[in-house]
Amino acid sequence: MRARSERIFAALGDPVDAIVLMNGSAHSSDSTFKYVSGVTRGGYEGCAAVLVPGRRPCLVVSKLEEESAGTAPDSDVHAFKTQAAQKEMLATLLGEPKRIGVNANAIVLAKVRLLEELFPDAVIVDVGDAISQVRLVKDETEVELVRRACAVTSEVAAEIPAMLREGITEIELAAGIEQAIRRRGGKVAFDTIVCFGANGSQPHYSPGPVPLKKGDMILVDFGTLRDDYCSDITRMFLFGKATPEQQAMYDVVRQAQSAALAHTTAGKPAKEVHRRVVEVIDATEFAGRFIHGTGHSIGLDVHDGGGISDASEITLAPGMIMTVEPGVYVPGVGGVRIEDTVLVTEGGPEILTPVTKDLVEVEA
Amino acid sequence: MRARSERIFAALGDPVDAIVLMNGSAHSSDSTFKYVSGVTRGGYEGCAAVLVPGRRPCLVVSKLEEESAGTAPDSDVHAFKTQAAQKEMLATLLGEPKRIGVNANAIVLAKVRLLEELFPDAVIVDVGDAISQVRLVKDETEVELVRRACAVTSEVAAEIPAMLREGITEIELAAGIEQAIRRRGGKVAFDTIVCFGANGSQPHYSPGPVPLKKGDMILVDFGTLRDDYCSDITRMFLFGKATPEQQAMYDVVRQAQSAALAHTTAGKPAKEVHRRVVEVIDATEFAGRFIHGTGHSIGLDVHDGGGISDASEITLAPGMIMTVEPGVYVPGVGGVRIEDTVLVTEGGPEILTPVTKDLVEVEA
Repeated sequence: MRARSERIFAALGDPVDAIVLMNGSAHSSDSTFKYVSGVTRGGYEGCAAVLVPGRRPCLVVSKLEEESAGTAPDSDVHAFKTQAAQKEMLATLLGEPKRIGVNANAIVLAKVRLLEELFPDAVIVDVGDAISQVRLVKDETEVELVRRACAVTSEVAAEIPAMLREGITEIELAAGIEQAIRRRGGKVAFDTIVCFGANGSQPHYSPGPVPLKKGDMILVDFGTLRDDYCSDITRMFLFGKATPEQQAMYDVVRQAQSAALAHTTAGKPAKEVHRRVVEVIDATEFAGRFIHGTGHSIGLDVHDGGGISDASEITLAPGMIMTVEPGVYVPGVGGVRIEDTVLVTEGGPEILTPVTKDLVEVEA
Repeated sequence: MRARSERIFAALGDPVDAIVLMNGSAHSSDSTFKYVSGVTRGGYEGCAAVLVPGRRPCLVVSKLEEESAGTAPDSDVHAFKTQAAQKEMLATLLGEPKRIGVNANAIVLAKVRLLEELFPDAVIVDVGDAISQVRLVKDETEVELVRRACAVTSEVAAEIPAMLREGITEIELAAGIEQAIRRRGGKVAFDTIVCFGANGSQPHYSPGPVPLKKGDMILVDFGTLRDDYCSDITRMFLFGKATPEQQAMYDVVRQAQSAALAHTTAGKPAKEVHRRVVEVIDATEFAGRFIHGTGHSIGLDVHDGGGISDASEITLAPGMIMTVEPGVYVPGVGGVRIEDTVLVTEGGPEILTPVTKDLVEVEA
């Protein structure tokens, strides 16, 4: 994946001699390792990618990961058995660099100290902004991978009405959704959110042993991870018939999401999309009930860096993939959120999760 | 969880004025935040825990996480809306520290630079070794949480024979196992490994669309995450009747695991347990086919720091929880691994995953 590496170097303000991406433990990994290598399997704990301008990326991986790293297109693989051997490989590959770039948002201090020990004369420079800027715009391979992850998510969303029955718990519905993802060869991209009734008022709710009952509005927010790329969707269902109050809450969010999508087009500042959502919601009885950003970039990570919010400095460009997910939340009553994963194009948004957005009423 | 915080300070060689644990993004979080706070729900992206000797832990969390952080026993919670507000809170809580401890294996460089900016006169010290040392020995609450995660895992392992049928794929079996975990209120602790036949020779194999056929040996390695604590098990099954070769391979690993368990007792150096496994396997036709460590510490993380291997410096002590998982791997033929999660006690190992370890033959 030399092209991706070169794009990062081209985005730098001040040049560096090399960039070293290093993973720590399973909880301290930098998905940019996968970005520059193009590998779509494996964990790569403690592994490194060495990028040098004009050269193919070098992956310095443990023997256990050598086989899967070998699938990386347009990259070289060096496998180590011991930490000492890894250090030697890094020293040889990097030579005598004056400036080493790292991704400060993802590299742990212990790995920075390892680089400082190996290269005492080098300056360690944060190149995280250039990495984020490049990763924000997906290339064709990435778009295709997100598209495939979204296809699974859409199929599973369409199956949800058939899973609903009186007494099924939030946990059981989440399990059913996750099994449907698994059957299609995907994994769960993040903890599935299933809220029945009033629980919908908490945006980050964890499903509990709560049984479904007639009249409940149902919020389901989930995503598929497939070949390391993510998708994200939220859909609403009604077990029985919607009351006028439930329908009104739903309609406001539907209208806000339509307004947002109409503005999700190349050239628009992301914050304007968010402001449009706030305008729509704040003109209704639900004023002040929209309490999070409108969306986030998605790709190798569910939150892939940057998004659509009041604080965003991003101007939308072709190839960006964003979620668009306005919502309203009324404690004690419930919440509504409608979310799509969307590809930004010159002509407007392409919705990658095109399953129906009606409030689906299921016979109770 | 002041007691845990105090144990960390007591384990330090050189004292510090405070320890700051900071999470980065979802991929850069430090489970020690959960350890010192005792919270068992929530993501805590970008949140911090401030530990000062003699004081209750202070959790500095985003408004979105305030409610779940409020469940932390014996801790104070400060909630911020903006990054600027978080910085002010950290400045106020810490005062004018001379030495700040961080966990270098888990804190990202960007957060270290934030601390350096806030406290330009302070020295940043790595206290990761003290944290690892303290976390290695579980307290009663932790033992109970791992025990409960293991109970789910054992129940699900016992259900696997009933899931097997001709043609089921590795992916489908993994999905069935994961749904069984979910139904019991657990989550998947790590990517489930299911290998049919020769695929068992790769210790880190990912399940594929491979159908089960008569005569296949089946390796299943999975774990449950429950209330943030992990469990880990590997069991073997045979679809049909085992050949003498399959049984022989199985018996060697069974014997190696029994030998390991006999030595997994307080006061033993962990490396001796590993060497015993190597001795047993290397005395058979499978000499050289055991290619990984014997086990790892498990708790809040699947790999919780340290383990049972040739390089281990750990002496086993009561309260440590380790996996014991010898295996043999023959490329082109298959592999066998038998794994339990085990509590070290004065009297020997308590097996927390007590489901049968026979090679279970299932009628094909």
